[in-house]
Amino acid sequence: MQSTIAAVDRLGETRYDSPLHARDTDPSHAGQYISDTQFVPLHITFDQAAERSGNIFFEKAGPRERTFFDAPRTSAAIVTCGGLCPGLNNVIRSLVMSLHCHYGIQRVYGIRYGYHGMNPANGHAPVELTVDAVSDIHETGGTIIGTSRGPEDPKVMVETLRGLGVNILFTVGGDGTQRGALKVYEEAKSQGYPLAVVGVPKTVDNDIQYVSRTFGFGTAVDAARSVIDIAHTEARAVLNGVGIVKLMGRDSGFIAAAATLASGEVNYCLIPELPAALDGPRGLLGVLEERLARKRHAVIVAAEGAGQNLLPKETQQKDASGNIKFGDIGGFLKDRITAHFRGLGRPINVRYIDPSYAIRGLAANTEDAVLCDYFARNAVHAAMSGRTGLVIGYVHNRFVHVPISMATDGRKKVPLDGELWKGLLAVTGQPSSWF
Amino acid sequence: MQSTIAAVDRLGETRYDSPLHARDTDPSHAGQYISDTQFVPLHITFDQAAERSGNIFFEKAGPRERTFFDAPRTSAAIVTCGGLCPGLNNVIRSLVMSLHCHYGIQRVYGIRYGYHGMNPANGHAPVELTVDAVSDIHETGGTIIGTSRGPEDPKVMVETLRGLGVNILFTVGGDGTQRGALKVYEEAKSQGYPLAVVGVPKTVDNDIQYVSRTFGFGTAVDAARSVIDIAHTEARAVLNGVGIVKLMGRDSGFIAAAATLASGEVNYCLIPELPAALDGPRGLLGVLEERLARKRHAVIVAAEGAGQNLLPKETQQKDASGNIKFGDIGGFLKDRITAHFRGLGRPINVRYIDPSYAIRGLAANTEDAVLCDYFARNAVHAAMSGRTGLVIGYVHNRFVHVPISMATDGRKKVPLDGELWKGLLAVTGQPSSWF
Amino acid sequence: MQSTIAAVDRLGETRYDSPLHARDTDPSHAGQYISDTQFVPLHITFDQAAERSGNIFFEKAGPRERTFFDAPRTSAAIVTCGGLCPGLNNVIRSLVMSLHCHYGIQRVYGIRYGYHGMNPANGHAPVELTVDAVSDIHETGGTIIGTSRGPEDPKVMVETLRGLGVNILFTVGGDGTQRGALKVYEEAKSQGYPLAVVGVPKTVDNDIQYVSRTFGFGTAVDAARSVIDIAHTEARAVLNGVGIVKLMGRDSGFIAAAATLASGEVNYCLIPELPAALDGPRGLLGVLEERLARKRHAVIVAAEGAGQNLLPKETQQKDASGNIKFGDIGGFLKDRITAHFRGLGRPINVRYIDPSYAIRGLAANTEDAVLCDYFARNAVHAAMSGRTGLVIGYVHNRFVHVPISMATDGRKKVPLDGELWKGLLAVTGQPSSWF
Amino acid sequence: MQSTIAAVDRLGETRYDSPLHARDTDPSHAGQYISDTQFVPLHITFDQAAERSGNIFFEKAGPRERTFFDAPRTSAAIVTCGGLCPGLNNVIRSLVMSLHCHYGIQRVYGIRYGYHGMNPANGHAPVELTVDAVSDIHETGGTIIGTSRGPEDPKVMVETLRGLGVNILFTVGGDGTQRGALKVYEEAKSQGYPLAVVGVPKTVDNDIQYVSRTFGFGTAVDAARSVIDIAHTEARAVLNGVGIVKLMGRDSGFIAAAATLASGEVNYCLIPELPAALDGPRGLLGVLEERLARKRHAVIVAAEGAGQNLLPKETQQKDASGNIKFGDIGGFLKDRITAHFRGLGRPINVRYIDPSYAIRGLAANTEDAVLCDYFARNAVHAAMSGRTGLVIGYVHNRFVHVPISMATDGRKKVPLDGELWKGLLAVTGQPSSWF
Repeated sequence: MQSTIAAVDRLGETRYDSPLHARDTDPSHAGQYISDTQFVPLHITFDQAAERSGNIFFEKAGPRERTFFDAPRTSAAIVTCGGLCPGLNNVIRSLVMSLHCHYGIQRVYGIRYGYHGMNPANGHAPVELTVDAVSDIHETGGTIIGTSRGPEDPKVMVETLRGLGVNILFTVGGDGTQRGALKVYEEAKSQGYPLAVVGVPKTVDNDIQYVSRTFGFGTAVDAARSVIDIAHTEARAVLNGVGIVKLMGRDSGFIAAAATLASGEVNYCLIPELPAALDGPRGLLGVLEERLARKRHAVIVAAEGAGQNLLPKETQQKDASGNIKFGDIGGFLKDRITAHFRGLGRPINVRYIDPSYAIRGLAANTEDAVLCDYFARNAVHAAMSGRTGLVIGYVHNRFVHVPISMATDGRKKVPLDGELWKGLLAVTGQPSSWF
Repeated sequence: MQSTIAAVDRLGETRYDSPLHARDTDPSHAGQYISDTQFVPLHITFDQAAERSGNIFFEKAGPRERTFFDAPRTSAAIVTCGGLCPGLNNVIRSLVMSLHCHYGIQRVYGIRYGYHGMNPANGHAPVELTVDAVSDIHETGGTIIGTSRGPEDPKVMVETLRGLGVNILFTVGGDGTQRGALKVYEEAKSQGYPLAVVGVPKTVDNDIQYVSRTFGFGTAVDAARSVIDIAHTEARAVLNGVGIVKLMGRDSGFIAAAATLASGEVNYCLIPELPAALDGPRGLLGVLEERLARKRHAVIVAAEGAGQNLLPKETQQKDASGNIKFGDIGGFLKDRITAHFRGLGRPINVRYIDPSYAIRGLAANTEDAVLCDYFARNAVHAAMSGRTGLVIGYVHNRFVHVPISMATDGRKKVPLDGELWKGLLAVTGQPSSWF
Repeated sequence: MQSTIAAVDRLGETRYDSPLHARDTDPSHAGQYISDTQFVPLHITFDQAAERSGNIFFEKAGPRERTFFDAPRTSAAIVTCGGLCPGLNNVIRSLVMSLHCHYGIQRVYGIRYGYHGMNPANGHAPVELTVDAVSDIHETGGTIIGTSRGPEDPKVMVETLRGLGVNILFTVGGDGTQRGALKVYEEAKSQGYPLAVVGVPKTVDNDIQYVSRTFGFGTAVDAARSVIDIAHTEARAVLNGVGIVKLMGRDSGFIAAAATLASGEVNYCLIPELPAALDGPRGLLGVLEERLARKRHAVIVAAEGAGQNLLPKETQQKDASGNIKFGDIGGFLKDRITAHFRGLGRPINVRYIDPSYAIRGLAANTEDAVLCDYFARNAVHAAMSGRTGLVIGYVHNRFVHVPISMATDGRKKVPLDGELWKGLLAVTGQPSSWF
Repeated sequence: MQSTIAAVDRLGETRYDSPLHARDTDPSHAGQYISDTQFVPLHITFDQAAERSGNIFFEKAGPRERTFFDAPRTSAAIVTCGGLCPGLNNVIRSLVMSLHCHYGIQRVYGIRYGYHGMNPANGHAPVELTVDAVSDIHETGGTIIGTSRGPEDPKVMVETLRGLGVNILFTVGGDGTQRGALKVYEEAKSQGYPLAVVGVPKTVDNDIQYVSRTFGFGTAVDAARSVIDIAHTEARAVLNGVGIVKLMGRDSGFIAAAATLASGEVNYCLIPELPAALDGPRGLLGVLEERLARKRHAVIVAAEGAGQNLLPKETQQKDASGNIKFGDIGGFLKDRITAHFRGLGRPINVRYIDPSYAIRGLAANTEDAVLCDYFARNAVHAAMSGRTGLVIGYVHNRFVHVPISMATDGRKKVPLDGELWKGLLAVTGQPSSWF
């Protein structure tokens, strides 16, 4: 197979010396800039016994020596969309700080309540984001500019940006948001309006492609682990106690799996990537029966999207972002487990905790604070260099440029033959298949 | 009105010098013992303008110079009942430490899974609790000896204790538990078996009479406040966001009120002590409408037992402890508020968080750790002195002896003319009546 | 002995109906106001066997039906002095909220950097504190208006207040600060200027008289306990490990004793109230030797002012507040213990942690957040009623008015025959005297 | 330049089917094993414009299909050395769990107090580590088997292991420890004794080569960030407040730099990799003077080994591990800054916090808990496959085998042209050179 470069669109030639030059007090200081010739491959493990397959090379993110935009005459805007995620305020802060302090951008707008605020008909004018206004916001969760779900007409959005004189738009959101960003990018391009659209990937579920780790994920795992510990405490304190914790993860089980691994107290973890079974020789009810007889308590973690094959098909509802609303796997497991053991005439005490809303609004933990800062700064560098239609990716601990179309083409899944899932099987001792 | 002394039953004369004598290295050390002549009054505020009303005097708790039991020949047992509460393990640890190290009691049993474990038919033999076994348990939540709901036959329980040679029983639990303890005490008395039954009041809701503050309550308020902060973050981040947090408090709104006060971010707090109204001039929906128009977000806290006057009457279910299962006030509010604003054609985003199970299993915070230790030690002193049929009370920062019958006669409520509720009205600005 | 009332000075007759009337939506709502005839006694334990001794009665704090000041024409000022203490921002916030929202005070000034900012010669003009400016400050430690140590001329301070048209001054600080407040009160009085001077007692050490618990203390104990746990971990991990933790407490050992009790892991706790000895039959070195031989690790907690009888007398230095600088008891113990065991030819690993500065800057914990709010609101009520020359006291869980002169006459000490110290002796097993 | 493979020594042919086979319930489950033909390159960034330089390829860590040891007849030992580091107990737990549960190893010894416990003359016999004994230890900091500094004679150590029948030794420690492990490996080899010596790299400073992130580092940065926030609070609360925080980092400034980046509140960060200057045009004192005039407060973070070029040369002392004791850069900065501003006649308030001992004893945070588990499990896989004389490395998020000699040849440094340091310069705005 052929190797390819993940080509990123550019608005034009870089015409200005980077304002970063002026900030460097050390004339001999080398290595500040990333050259356009640097790339990071997607596949890096080398197998002597296997044929070399095709690879994808991503541009390395970072400051360029020359910029496309003339900073003092350029304005930028930031929009945050979708559900809350720890770190949104950190990203906003670092974007504003970097635009103002490093590049000397004079004006940065905060779009109110997601794409909603880019449609003047909704009546929420953008606010100006100054350095003072953002200096302490990283200490709290949420997003100071507000968020919402759902799209707006790309034509209207581009018109709003042109009206504000904005040439740089940072879209902080998940794949729905980035697909919206793609439309804005395409619309601006078709109008010949030089707009750099740079996405900062946001998904607490950690399921965006070519982003090995999204901000907020670590904070979520952290909080999830604490909740699991409490479910463990509850389960241990009663006879045949079963603690069930439902965690975020619609399509991918990263939070559930990582929290399970971190906790060390989970016995069964269900994720969307692996179909589950309750009955049958390796089904959950049977293995749980055996464990309770032996240990008298158990802890089960289920990702939101896990076990959907088990749930009764209802008329599927969707939220404003167009996501299908899932059946409640946690409540379902609670009911089925209770019924099963009652049927056997055995005592059973099931506790079910769903901490999702109490997690998404947390402030970013240390790990995520650093990650947010890196993502934001690299987004600013990319925009200033005139790149557009991309999101900031993160592979092998390196930040890279990923075309939006690639990043939004499918979702990242927990690889069942990878370190995470193998670790989980080792730690829980759960069956590698429920069938 | 006449003042009275809250008389506590005693097994007989105190026949032994307290083993605490031997531990005191300072011969001139005074004040180690509490004399039986010390009392703490229930009412202490004095009003020059009002007639002096009757008062109740409680015995001051603490070590006595002489004991009823001969420590080296006495065994004790500990039972924990009802729902989890932060601090149970601290109480167990301090009971064991004090019995072993201070008094030289040789054998302390831990009854398994509440009163359930006092019936041999259930098949859970008591375990022995040594100093080594309990030395690190205060660092985790739950109860190492397990808990359950529901009673057992007092005759069977006394028989079990006699079989074990136990003459001291510590019952750690709420008013259901202490009513069970009362029956054990009465049964032993009727048999002429010298059994000291001493209750350590446990109620995360803080609703036991003559106990101004129960252990676990502070930890719960702590955690509740964090959740309220997150609900506030969620509410602020979206257009017309309303965060609803349901907190523990079946009959009394102490947790809801204290967390509201601590948070400083709550706009409306509903507690069982004050009937609520949704409609009408001062009803919640109207004041919420007005607030959202002005501020675009709001936070509502509701105690579990609040607003039950609003909920449709269903066939009332009871749990194993005989407590009525309440309707879900949080879900009810969420539905009604959403419907109301949709009816008005206004955007509305309601988030509902119910953190109860994630709170009860926490380890005790610092405040509660100290409180647990005091309660436990005073319980040991009371038992060694031959007192029985009592719980350890706590009034005006002093530990006292309260006959079980008094402590379980009704529940403590948030006084609507007290510091807590007045503070809450001041901080929230909510109406003092919903009607 | 005669009982006395702790009389508080008043600026004059209360001439206005309280603006709180207007806020009460429930006409039948009773009990909102505290009458001037309500008092709380200092001594409440009653001993049948002892002669009744004299008692002190404090006025109960709280809102009065009528006010001295005409709220719409009154301005107030807040000053914070001395070292940081968790909760300062909560107090500022609640003072501002209550003045503005409850009483309708139009203007509240924040004095910059303590009394320093009341002298115009220092060049720091007061800032105006609005509701918006303070709405989120309770989430962070420190004090947004700044603090400093040391006095200014009372004449200059009163002149500054008169210049600003301020008739209410809240002094948030320890006994040095309140002694300064006393001078301001006296100066204003001698000038016939109606100035309500109301102190909010601030001492992380919890050593102010007639204040059973000061804000910030609980947060400090919380943090201290965590550090003790780490010292315990360090000590256990090495051969003959000794962890020494020095905690705040110049004259009183409340933090050291409470953290010791909460931790349950401390073996020896030294406080200023009890002279210590290293040598001799019950000296620390001997008992430590015995313990290490048996357990191979130990944890020692020392209050800052403990063991000063052991330290070499140096020329005593004072800080800007006039406090004597203490010798470093922690370092001294580390050196002496190390030398002692080396002299015996035994391995020894001493770790010394002094977390003081990392504690004082913390945000208030939940407990303290509530306490701050109560103190502040009661200070506002007292000031509006025209009371002056007082601090808000707190006895038996009731807020009271205490004349500054009484509150600053000596310091509160850990009673060696009280619940706290007896509890500590029980938990640590340390000797009740080192001699 | 030639590319090379980092060859790892093996004890011999792998003679047994891995016991992991039996655990896999899914016969069709693929990808459980790592083949010996998989490698991970050290350099992965590709530059079109540069000549390809030599690369180093590391073996990918992970379970092998066949093992060298016959699990049921093999015993293992674990030793932890050097200073405490968050996660030691997690590593011990995961090693024991994996050895027992995955491979069926019957006996695992815990060596007491580091290498010290491998010399019988010191009198500390190894303890047996069962699954029950380790099941809850990951919740606390420290190391349950104890630690110490300093070497023992390799001959004696191998003799001890042979006496115990141990064929697998896990050495958890920093480069001193791993150099000791190298000697044990060489000694065993020279004796022809089949001993698998597998190191788990432990350095809170994160300075081991070919390990992009060591366990404990994240927890340390987390805690350091909290302390920085407090130093910031302290600095802001007083006039010309300067908060100085000294953090761990003898040779490498990773903790200082990462905590600075995470905090977002630091103005100057000194690390060992970059010589510092106080005086001169870009020296710290000058830039600090300028900042205080403008902002009135500042925060400085210094790694332990930073600025050693500034400190007076004293007779260099060494600790038991042979590490040079550094001069106290924090105290030095405090004194010099105070003197400088006093000399200028300006007020100055310097607060210095050194939280080192309060950090190392913490329990692992979530991130580190997962990392510990991965490191430990891969160490077990490596040992079972008969590999020896290696440590588990971690490059580009992949675990690899690194010969001890390579891992201990020099220390990892913060690259001054890398993402971390460039991010730090951007966030702090500090000069890129102090000269």
